Amino acid sequence: MSATDAAETDAQERLRRGQADHPASPVMRFGPDRPLPLDSGAAIAPWQIAYQTYGRLNADRSNAILVCHALTGDQHVASDNPVTGKPGWWTMMIGPGRPIDTDRWFVICANVLGGCMGTTGPASTGPDGRIYGLDLPVLTIGDMVRAQAMLVDALGIGRLFAVVGGSMGGMQVLQWAAAYPDRVFAAVCMASGARHSSQNIAFHEVGRQAVMADPDWCGGRYLDAGTSPKKGLAVARMAAHITYMSGQSLHAKFGRNLQDRERLTFGFDADFQIESYLRHQGMTFVDRFDANSYLYVTRAMDYFDLAAARDGALSKVFQGSRTRFCIVSFTSDWLFPTSESRAVVHALNAAGASVSFVEIESDRGHDSFLLDIPEQFRIVRGFLTGAARAAGLAFAGRD
Amino acid sequence: MSATDAAETDAQERLRRGQADHPASPVMRFGPDRPLPLDSGAAIAPWQIAYQTYGRLNADRSNAILVCHALTGDQHVASDNPVTGKPGWWTMMIGPGRPIDTDRWFVICANVLGGCMGTTGPASTGPDGRIYGLDLPVLTIGDMVRAQAMLVDALGIGRLFAVVGGSMGGMQVLQWAAAYPDRVFAAVCMASGARHSSQNIAFHEVGRQAVMADPDWCGGRYLDAGTSPKKGLAVARMAAHITYMSGQSLHAKFGRNLQDRERLTFGFDADFQIESYLRHQGMTFVDRFDANSYLYVTRAMDYFDLAAARDGALSKVFQGSRTRFCIVSFTSDWLFPTSESRAVVHALNAAGASVSFVEIESDRGHDSFLLDIPEQFRIVRGFLTGAARAAGLAFAGRD
Repeated sequence: MSATDAAETDAQERLRRGQADHPASPVMRFGPDRPLPLDSGAAIAPWQIAYQTYGRLNADRSNAILVCHALTGDQHVASDNPVTGKPGWWTMMIGPGRPIDTDRWFVICANVLGGCMGTTGPASTGPDGRIYGLDLPVLTIGDMVRAQAMLVDALGIGRLFAVVGGSMGGMQVLQWAAAYPDRVFAAVCMASGARHSSQNIAFHEVGRQAVMADPDWCGGRYLDAGTSPKKGLAVARMAAHITYMSGQSLHAKFGRNLQDRERLTFGFDADFQIESYLRHQGMTFVDRFDANSYLYVTRAMDYFDLAAARDGALSKVFQGSRTRFCIVSFTSDWLFPTSESRAVVHALNAAGASVSFVEIESDRGHDSFLLDIPEQFRIVRGFLTGAARAAGLAFAGRD
Repeated sequence: MSATDAAETDAQERLRRGQADHPASPVMRFGPDRPLPLDSGAAIAPWQIAYQTYGRLNADRSNAILVCHALTGDQHVASDNPVTGKPGWWTMMIGPGRPIDTDRWFVICANVLGGCMGTTGPASTGPDGRIYGLDLPVLTIGDMVRAQAMLVDALGIGRLFAVVGGSMGGMQVLQWAAAYPDRVFAAVCMASGARHSSQNIAFHEVGRQAVMADPDWCGGRYLDAGTSPKKGLAVARMAAHITYMSGQSLHAKFGRNLQDRERLTFGFDADFQIESYLRHQGMTFVDRFDANSYLYVTRAMDYFDLAAARDGALSKVFQGSRTRFCIVSFTSDWLFPTSESRAVVHALNAAGASVSFVEIESDRGHDSFLLDIPEQFRIVRGFLTGAARAAGLAFAGRD
């Protein structure tokens, strides 16, 4: 890395660290009198949640769509990210004229609890003036959703027209529908499931161990120590990134192609493009994400098991639900394979809920939901249009 | 870990480190006058290869079977491992009355070049009296096989009746058949392929980065420094171990079961059995394996691409081969999926070679070839019996 690159990297990291308490987003702050109760039995107070909105809330507050982000996403879903300067992570899905059309819908996206972009997380300053680190209680998907519900309340919105998300965002969608069935008219859950599988827990555990093995992690106190467990977090990201792609897409994109060389060098440098690509993924990630947040948010995913509280019967979770569900999976997604979506669909059917399910043919793996795959845009647009008609929304006749 | 456990661990590590130069195995030593030429253009001299044999070589030296081990295996294939004290890694396959029946066959298994159990590798002492570390040239599967061929020569064996192996062992089998077609009568290649895929290179790169990120790795000089990159190597092993199992088998074995507790602890300890299991896999591995060997042997696998020297035409590699091939894959193996075996079979068919191919139904993933799956034993026994008849071996009539 050149001196210029290193300086840019440092500048970006400083910028990102500043987001934890003072994000470049609207923030809803809840004082000591409005604690956030957690599934662990603990509570956080004061606390805050950072969010972005797009479009306009209509007069009867009936056009709000909450978008839930995935593990390393954030609230900057459809506008430039203030840390990386890159476009929002779902601009193909959300914006004027897009499937989630901001000329019609009022879109809200909040940084998750435990994140590092302005919602209370391990990088935030706690009530004693110290950075939380591992003193923050361990969090769940249920806690994230409870925090979002308090934000939605504070915004004066009783019922969300829809909750939409992929991967961990899809977990939040299902949690919303389970915890607040009367506040969710429609739910779109993509590339996700109602629980985290053994294999997925395993990959997360590898990532956490990689972070905690880095001596610069300092038992979670690296922000106080002025260090950063970059090497460990980069390894964690590299391992995770493989799981976001399919074997086919790696083969198609990289195969065994060499990186800027004509032949093997017989060394441990990145001879292959796939190695160079993964190293780049690891290195850029550490500048935009907090290592402890990675621990907390992966843990929340691992803990997710919607049926556990109902003796493993997922259908009981949705019994009597009037929410309209749209479940989407992708053929080559091996992190959340179609079987996980199908289990949700079976439970919804058993519960008598309204559900449409599509498995989309894609060779691009788990990350398909973030990519330019036209079929998913048609599906989300069509589902929302149909739901809008069913809800009798004013603009629905125009489609 | 208790003080007793730690002392046992230290003792085992010392025992293992001693194997590098002075293994508890027969060793063939090649002096400065008999260098091992390498694919990189370098050569190693002096060098040595440690091996085990089982059964007896017959009078006309026609009953020798070379068994090739996988990434972290060693020569102790059918007898107790002197470091761990555990039984050999393929005792279900090899022994008196077993599919590779040592009452008939003379079985040879050598530690691979680059390994740490007595064949020259990065933990060995080089000609200058220093431990090689990263000064050892980077090695290939071709180099490993060339070393084995020199051992087989030194044992006075012209032609091997068979070469047998799984995973990286299967790569060596194919390399043997390609490099020494007249010296291999029969070849059994299980759970393997003719090249390392992009996804597999990716997982190996994660493992290497985890090792090299550990400050105790000391740029590869940890043996001189008196340190050991245990945390990094454990993370590497954890990630790799996930790839050796299938999602189904992880689900069946662990699911979301908790480890010695009734409920979630809301912490970062190993709440789930799968976490505890993986941590154990990581911790026990570092006592029995050398971190630099892990770098070298994974690199050799990444470099393997049998067709590369023939403009990508695998069939040309085997053109005119008279070797009889048996190719075996397992349905749930996602590290070396059946498609990789099928590519080998197609090439062999195109080359007009004799090949039998079986895809075995198993939900236990890549490691199936090491497990008690009776069908594979029947297949190997049957294939060897048929080949023995074709070769006119004296005992063949007895089956």
